[in-house]
Amino acid sequence: MKFTCIKENLIKGLNAVAKISGKNISLPILNNILIVAENEGIKFSATNLEIGIKTKIRGKIEEAGKITVPAKTLAGFVGYLPEEKVKFELLKNSNEIKITSGTWETKIKTQSADEYPLIPEVATENVLKLKTSQLKQILSETIFAAITNESRPELSGGYFNISEQLLTMVATDSYRLAEKKFITEENKKKAHFIVPIKTLQELEKILSESEEDEEVKIYWEENQVLFLMSQAELNSRLINGEYPDYTQIIPDKHTTRIAFNKNVAVNAIKAASLFVKTGIYDVIFEFKKPDKMFIKAANSQLGENQAIIDCEIEGEENNIVFNYHYILDGLLNLTNEKVILEMSNPNSPAVLKIDKKDDYLYLMMPIRQ
Amino acid sequence: MKFTCIKENLIKGLNAVAKISGKNISLPILNNILIVAENEGIKFSATNLEIGIKTKIRGKIEEAGKITVPAKTLAGFVGYLPEEKVKFELLKNSNEIKITSGTWETKIKTQSADEYPLIPEVATENVLKLKTSQLKQILSETIFAAITNESRPELSGGYFNISEQLLTMVATDSYRLAEKKFITEENKKKAHFIVPIKTLQELEKILSESEEDEEVKIYWEENQVLFLMSQAELNSRLINGEYPDYTQIIPDKHTTRIAFNKNVAVNAIKAASLFVKTGIYDVIFEFKKPDKMFIKAANSQLGENQAIIDCEIEGEENNIVFNYHYILDGLLNLTNEKVILEMSNPNSPAVLKIDKKDDYLYLMMPIRQ
Repeated sequence: MKFTCIKENLIKGLNAVAKISGKNISLPILNNILIVAENEGIKFSATNLEIGIKTKIRGKIEEAGKITVPAKTLAGFVGYLPEEKVKFELLKNSNEIKITSGTWETKIKTQSADEYPLIPEVATENVLKLKTSQLKQILSETIFAAITNESRPELSGGYFNISEQLLTMVATDSYRLAEKKFITEENKKKAHFIVPIKTLQELEKILSESEEDEEVKIYWEENQVLFLMSQAELNSRLINGEYPDYTQIIPDKHTTRIAFNKNVAVNAIKAASLFVKTGIYDVIFEFKKPDKMFIKAANSQLGENQAIIDCEIEGEENNIVFNYHYILDGLLNLTNEKVILEMSNPNSPAVLKIDKKDDYLYLMMPIRQ
Repeated sequence: MKFTCIKENLIKGLNAVAKISGKNISLPILNNILIVAENEGIKFSATNLEIGIKTKIRGKIEEAGKITVPAKTLAGFVGYLPEEKVKFELLKNSNEIKITSGTWETKIKTQSADEYPLIPEVATENVLKLKTSQLKQILSETIFAAITNESRPELSGGYFNISEQLLTMVATDSYRLAEKKFITEENKKKAHFIVPIKTLQELEKILSESEEDEEVKIYWEENQVLFLMSQAELNSRLINGEYPDYTQIIPDKHTTRIAFNKNVAVNAIKAASLFVKTGIYDVIFEFKKPDKMFIKAANSQLGENQAIIDCEIEGEENNIVFNYHYILDGLLNLTNEKVILEMSNPNSPAVLKIDKKDDYLYLMMPIRQ
């Protein structure tokens, strides 16, 4: 194996895959990156057996081949190289790969590519197509609401529900829930599956580094999903189990609808958060006519805080108490300035929406009074 | 107590003192900030009994007074206030202070100022005057070399040695040593004392926030030191004990002198650091005529790395092995681009200097071969 490539491409290609190869003690080869040099270019792959990532960069290939190299060493090292041009050569009589750039010469021990686990192929029968920017927004507005540990496996994933021309993406930890609806092109089949939240977090990172607004293809089959972009692909197992029927807890009417400025409210909630009761995190919201929102918290040890901010109230005066983490998470993940809260009474779930849009909702269970 | 001040001043004044008031369980009042409103302005103080910090801001005082308030709550809170003007009022019939800004109203529980420990006064007999920018540079070039735990108390401080018109500042952990000499004005007396490294780190933070190049006065007596700036003062106990006679280990001659570019070397050392032996951190430096520096590391598990960089060699060819942390620390804390290394043989201490300057040295013990 022998090829030359450009430092910037190399860094980009390696960074996306190196994150996945952790410190795996039982299967040390998983700490390596698989490098494959072929006609079409240079491919880097890594897997932790749950998620697999592949990236592809351009380069001049003098001799095709494949090998595996410790991920942390290789990815850490290339950033310091002095020149743009980097040569790789697998040495014939040792188990080392030689990397040269200017007056620098590095030899890294390798392991055979034959020992590296295969990243399973996903059939390309079922496909959903989106733009990278669209998928990025769908993820950023939903996945923060999922459970990140595995206490309830089916809630530690993002729920994809595909029907005709609609993708519905849902994440919940059972105290709050984010739902995004997205009109897609030409979906023929109904389908639904749960993608691990760690996969979606990795996907978000890859998307955030994709410069142009290109197409992402999502392929799925019974136990696997594949996110295919032009320079990278992410493969993951799916979570077994049924996603809870969350639609029944989404209120279909409300008695109070409040429109307000997100940033002003975020500041007031953060200030109030310093005065909440330990372990309860209770911030009180009161909506009083004409058009005032009171955001309050009180704590017998520290004191109390009250901010009065402008809003527009339709319907009845009302009040509700939220765990401040939940409402802050919801507000901070919205890109719009003007936000809507809909509620009926202090003990029923309330819903955050984006003004003039019906494709998104963030539901929060209140703290009962 | 009743006063009005500007949010930006408040944030600045509180931030410097709030850091010092930690979670002190045995003496909870130390978690508070002392606020004193008097004719001259508003003063904030905090102490952890080792270090005391006072800051002063301007404001309109309607009623003089003093009180203590939980540091974390107050400092965390003021950043979110909606308006520039902030009013403080100590409520007569409760133990609360009321803070208002626009439509926001906050009440924070207080504790009497009488219970707050006094920050000791330091006699103003012995004084050393510097500019803030000068002291900032002296600290940044030295204190990183000290021990930050208390395993050897006298080495967990910065050594100030004042003689006639020279301030010598030293820090060492016994494996490496930084010494900075600084010509001062009108010192009459000889003196030396050891200031805890934590004090100097706090001082560095305060200096980095001082906008203008103003005067710092350093006052000292047997057990105390005071750093006095116009808007802030820092008071600290001194470390008891004798500072080791470090001058005897500083080599007075060398056989090889190498001049090189700091940034190029830093990159090569960082790349080599990925190939050092675990727990040894050994990077090999070879100086070969004409004018080449080889920076190398090798590890039987991972592989090896070699960078050849340009340098200017005077004297003999030579080689030496350093713990990469030590040489990186030294290089990264220098502001100059061109750096000098002086050494005699692979087993004797080597010295980093700044080209054309004699006021600074950074000594490193090599790894013996």
